[in-house]
Amino acid sequence: MPRPTKVNVTIVGASGYSGEELTRLVLRHPELELAAVTSRQTAGQKLNDVFQALPRKTDLVFTSPEIPDLIKTADVFMLALPHGVAAGFAEPLVAAGKKVFDLSADFRLRSADVYKEFYGQDHPAPALLEKAVYGSPEWHKAEIKSAQLVACPGCYPTSILLPTLPLIKAGVIVHDRIIADSMSGVSGAGRKADIDFLFVECNESLRAYSVPKHRHLSEIEQELNFRLSGTYSSPSDASIKISFTPHLVPVNRGIHTTLYFDLDPMFIERSKLTGCEKAISAIYQETYANEPFVRLLTNGKLPDTKNVMGSNFIEIAWRFDARTNRLIVLSAIDNIVKGASGQAIQALNIMYGWDETTGLH
Amino acid sequence: MPRPTKVNVTIVGASGYSGEELTRLVLRHPELELAAVTSRQTAGQKLNDVFQALPRKTDLVFTSPEIPDLIKTADVFMLALPHGVAAGFAEPLVAAGKKVFDLSADFRLRSADVYKEFYGQDHPAPALLEKAVYGSPEWHKAEIKSAQLVACPGCYPTSILLPTLPLIKAGVIVHDRIIADSMSGVSGAGRKADIDFLFVECNESLRAYSVPKHRHLSEIEQELNFRLSGTYSSPSDASIKISFTPHLVPVNRGIHTTLYFDLDPMFIERSKLTGCEKAISAIYQETYANEPFVRLLTNGKLPDTKNVMGSNFIEIAWRFDARTNRLIVLSAIDNIVKGASGQAIQALNIMYGWDETTGLH
Amino acid sequence: MPRPTKVNVTIVGASGYSGEELTRLVLRHPELELAAVTSRQTAGQKLNDVFQALPRKTDLVFTSPEIPDLIKTADVFMLALPHGVAAGFAEPLVAAGKKVFDLSADFRLRSADVYKEFYGQDHPAPALLEKAVYGSPEWHKAEIKSAQLVACPGCYPTSILLPTLPLIKAGVIVHDRIIADSMSGVSGAGRKADIDFLFVECNESLRAYSVPKHRHLSEIEQELNFRLSGTYSSPSDASIKISFTPHLVPVNRGIHTTLYFDLDPMFIERSKLTGCEKAISAIYQETYANEPFVRLLTNGKLPDTKNVMGSNFIEIAWRFDARTNRLIVLSAIDNIVKGASGQAIQALNIMYGWDETTGLH
Amino acid sequence: MPRPTKVNVTIVGASGYSGEELTRLVLRHPELELAAVTSRQTAGQKLNDVFQALPRKTDLVFTSPEIPDLIKTADVFMLALPHGVAAGFAEPLVAAGKKVFDLSADFRLRSADVYKEFYGQDHPAPALLEKAVYGSPEWHKAEIKSAQLVACPGCYPTSILLPTLPLIKAGVIVHDRIIADSMSGVSGAGRKADIDFLFVECNESLRAYSVPKHRHLSEIEQELNFRLSGTYSSPSDASIKISFTPHLVPVNRGIHTTLYFDLDPMFIERSKLTGCEKAISAIYQETYANEPFVRLLTNGKLPDTKNVMGSNFIEIAWRFDARTNRLIVLSAIDNIVKGASGQAIQALNIMYGWDETTGLH
Repeated sequence: MPRPTKVNVTIVGASGYSGEELTRLVLRHPELELAAVTSRQTAGQKLNDVFQALPRKTDLVFTSPEIPDLIKTADVFMLALPHGVAAGFAEPLVAAGKKVFDLSADFRLRSADVYKEFYGQDHPAPALLEKAVYGSPEWHKAEIKSAQLVACPGCYPTSILLPTLPLIKAGVIVHDRIIADSMSGVSGAGRKADIDFLFVECNESLRAYSVPKHRHLSEIEQELNFRLSGTYSSPSDASIKISFTPHLVPVNRGIHTTLYFDLDPMFIERSKLTGCEKAISAIYQETYANEPFVRLLTNGKLPDTKNVMGSNFIEIAWRFDARTNRLIVLSAIDNIVKGASGQAIQALNIMYGWDETTGLH
Repeated sequence: MPRPTKVNVTIVGASGYSGEELTRLVLRHPELELAAVTSRQTAGQKLNDVFQALPRKTDLVFTSPEIPDLIKTADVFMLALPHGVAAGFAEPLVAAGKKVFDLSADFRLRSADVYKEFYGQDHPAPALLEKAVYGSPEWHKAEIKSAQLVACPGCYPTSILLPTLPLIKAGVIVHDRIIADSMSGVSGAGRKADIDFLFVECNESLRAYSVPKHRHLSEIEQELNFRLSGTYSSPSDASIKISFTPHLVPVNRGIHTTLYFDLDPMFIERSKLTGCEKAISAIYQETYANEPFVRLLTNGKLPDTKNVMGSNFIEIAWRFDARTNRLIVLSAIDNIVKGASGQAIQALNIMYGWDETTGLH
Repeated sequence: MPRPTKVNVTIVGASGYSGEELTRLVLRHPELELAAVTSRQTAGQKLNDVFQALPRKTDLVFTSPEIPDLIKTADVFMLALPHGVAAGFAEPLVAAGKKVFDLSADFRLRSADVYKEFYGQDHPAPALLEKAVYGSPEWHKAEIKSAQLVACPGCYPTSILLPTLPLIKAGVIVHDRIIADSMSGVSGAGRKADIDFLFVECNESLRAYSVPKHRHLSEIEQELNFRLSGTYSSPSDASIKISFTPHLVPVNRGIHTTLYFDLDPMFIERSKLTGCEKAISAIYQETYANEPFVRLLTNGKLPDTKNVMGSNFIEIAWRFDARTNRLIVLSAIDNIVKGASGQAIQALNIMYGWDETTGLH
Repeated sequence: MPRPTKVNVTIVGASGYSGEELTRLVLRHPELELAAVTSRQTAGQKLNDVFQALPRKTDLVFTSPEIPDLIKTADVFMLALPHGVAAGFAEPLVAAGKKVFDLSADFRLRSADVYKEFYGQDHPAPALLEKAVYGSPEWHKAEIKSAQLVACPGCYPTSILLPTLPLIKAGVIVHDRIIADSMSGVSGAGRKADIDFLFVECNESLRAYSVPKHRHLSEIEQELNFRLSGTYSSPSDASIKISFTPHLVPVNRGIHTTLYFDLDPMFIERSKLTGCEKAISAIYQETYANEPFVRLLTNGKLPDTKNVMGSNFIEIAWRFDARTNRLIVLSAIDNIVKGASGQAIQALNIMYGWDETTGLH
């Protein structure tokens, strides 16, 4: 039986950290062919010269991302571009019938108003918002399968939503008391010349930023409210508003999130016999038992970003604090893999019906 | 006028990170004479050979800490020993009329029961608990002045109490909703051979530990409740219980704490005109305006541990989140200086009536 | 045609960094089956609990490495044990006809005398020295193919020999003027509880060690002299003695080596027309053009350990300094992959006739 | 007796790492008054807002460095400006009779031709070259005392010259065989927005740069030849040319240098009785016994940058390799303190006749 033809993929805006990781993942993926890589900054340079660390030699040369030439290069396009810019590429590509995976924030929100509130500009392509699917493999599998435009989730949202959504769905937490405290490695700031992210400014430095209103709150709250109400209702009706503080810490890769939940008093009452921690375990096990990239830590350990570095896994653990009736849930991901490029490939695997782990181990 | 004689200081258990920092600080202090340094592990070795980085040469040699010889060496003793061990030295030293600054947890708690609950062993010298003063220069200045036994505060408690106590005192926060999320550098784990704290195990690693009940909760809650009620009441009456999660992150020095408070609705109402953030600013300014080591960030900046590294400062900033009616307060200290040895010297300066900053800039 | 059965591999002493990497590589290798993993420290624990970061779940549990039970577990044994200990396992395994890849130094030297000089103890199994092959895939391919006992090269030697051997072979450098200056990440020190390798002791620290006679000099000089003379002659005849200084620097992974060579005056004369740098390029190209894991940097770049991290590549670059007539050659490897476990798998691929890159991309 | 008036110091170009350290050192110096700080980038901002980590509050505001206003601000000027720019400030300041300490490379070389060769531009003020003194406190003390224009040595040169000059002076090494291999922390690259020095590009990265001809070779060779010949002879006569390779490693602060010397055969012969290492020790002891900032390691230890971090010390150790007749000498400094700002203050102390260590412990 002849091997089926590989699927052609073009990566647009490949010179950043997510773009580089996407390049690596596509090159190693048995079903994908890297058709083209674009970047205005590195146009004309060989892929292997720009990314010395790639696993193998290719003949590819960075090109400048000019529509309509770009459209012809592939069937699948992965956009690793800044928000606001990505939408401009997505429009003609979607119009031409291409599959588009956008790693920016441009299509994550259902509401152009919320986009404007959090990103400070009018949405560049509001007509496409309805078409886009929030590309969380664990929570929107069916929609991804039939999507043409996938909005890949943000890194912080991934680390927060995966531990929180099962609790929302199970109705065991007090909705207006959610607090998320995250630490991120510096690759989250992107590969751009900025004094704030110089080695000397970040090494031996621990600091919070974007307090109290980081942009990612918009998609986190959207997805929490969607899971609560079952619809992408108007944001003004949204009942869940959370506190979220991101911190910058001196590692290259990784996001660690600590979540504080007030358990619903009735759930605590109900769980008296088994214990709250066990009852929570059951919820997580039921939700994620068959998910290939969710590692529930039931062996007494806590998440550690070094255990997920370079991989598409998320680690989740939970502890009940009987002194305060609070549940503490902790998660760890690689912000560039599960938090960006790996999760995008996982969604692509779902869309094409391949095993979800293809090319990701 | 002849220069008054210097005060003799002996450091007991000097071979760890806090002991080394104490040694440096005492050597640089214009009013102090380093009389002796003890350490079982390094007994017989020259001080300058063990601590190559000291600012100057001394003739001192590490000795083994044997009572009663030890007692004769100085008037002031600083104990940089593990909890449980420190008390055994404090007893004869206090009995002999010496001034004792204990950097361990042995005398921080007023209740031997709470000590047992959190440290898992009977208190080794419960009779001394009444004599001890919690050595927070900003909050127990008068007691320190007349104390003989000073229990120097823990590192996490320092980073949490200084931002929280003014709010408790002012009565503007909901007491049972306090959440403290901290990150600490690895020196907090001490200089001991332990695989968990090897470079390779900590570098590129972000992880929580001691969830949900870290030992430092005991002194944090004691001091919060003391400030609330005005007495060291029985712990069972204590109305404040907080959530606290420490995280280990790959820096040598520094603790960064992010605190989440629910503001009292009446305070929010009262502050409508000025705004909550300004009203909170007023509280902090009033409390700390004359404190030489509290740096209130009113210039739009957020605390960063690199700005306090090697110094006795604490940086504090605050933001009101109108979306959730929460107040986010952030702090940064050097865990070994303000969180341990520097704060001890500051307390000693207070006790002897010197300028609080002597030897600390 | 039925898929041939996989080859069973047992890893002995798997709880260190090289052992963990071996475990990962064997689990991902399409032709290998991980039969057993042993470790006295972690015996009885699940493989996935000890190494949380493995790419997939296995049923394996660490066992205690007891001969003769051990012998039955597999056809191939990889020993990730300390020197001195490894030989004790190799003897019965070799006697039982097993293939053995030893990652320790026990079988790298042809001379038991040199072993004693550099390792300070009598060789534990001198009779096996003749049987062992120095497992450098690029320089002993034929011997590896037919070997039963492969002594996998040390990390520093790999980073030094690969750039130096082509120049020795080509006869273009002055033999008694070779200087090798290396920097290594802390994983090179192994996963053992030792204060010297604590995070705080290594972070923000740059230091040399084992000056001037590091153990790895023995195998480096053996292989250089072998390439020069064509035989493993008596060490006393060896004409090449080099200077080598290793440095410990705060990274997890990676060795960077800078080599200083005096070019042979006749070679400089001969190369006047093309230039020395081009003439050297020709030598490297000729030697390594077909080697899948040698990346010759001809694009103006210099080696960087971050470009080889987690991979089996070595990067090599060279510069001629016309001011001093010296040639500077630089290399970078991942000490745990190309410098240990990856190179072992590469040798195993050669032995079994598989593509050399199998399981290594 | 009234306290003598403090000396006014203005720092020009204070917004980089050396400028910040100078600011800290001047603020802590008992004899100095910080008169003004200038920086085009931060003009108008408060000193304490830009450098949050300063030890105390000041009223100073950054000004724009405009001659002639600048001239009036102080008696001493410290220039922390890029090479090429510094000379433009030095000229009018020197003409106005001010004392100038230039931390750039502009006045380190006696020859404008060598400047052009290594810095790629005509010297901007060649007439001043004769007036300038190379500000190495240990080697040009007398000249510094009477100088008006002090060219503060570069960071790498400091780490190389201090260990090498005693050996040149004693005539015990082969002059044309000197090799210097250095590692530097990232602060050496300055505080400028450049992708190459982002945290993610430097962390977990080890790499060489400027191979084989770094600019600092010019001043290193000038000073070595001066010490050899006794005059700043024409560079074409210079008999010493060295190999020097700088490496960038992921620490904030610190330079570690490893030097390889071939000992003069007659010296080896002469030292047969005492041993070469002891004979070398005598040379270093004789040279540096009274130098307050040279720490000769005679206790079996090797230099470690963490032992000099934040201090003005240089650590030096040496080992004789009888296998190769080479001497290995190692040194460690803080590149921003002893390698820049601290050494400048030390020179200023000498010029004003204060104790050399004033303000530096």
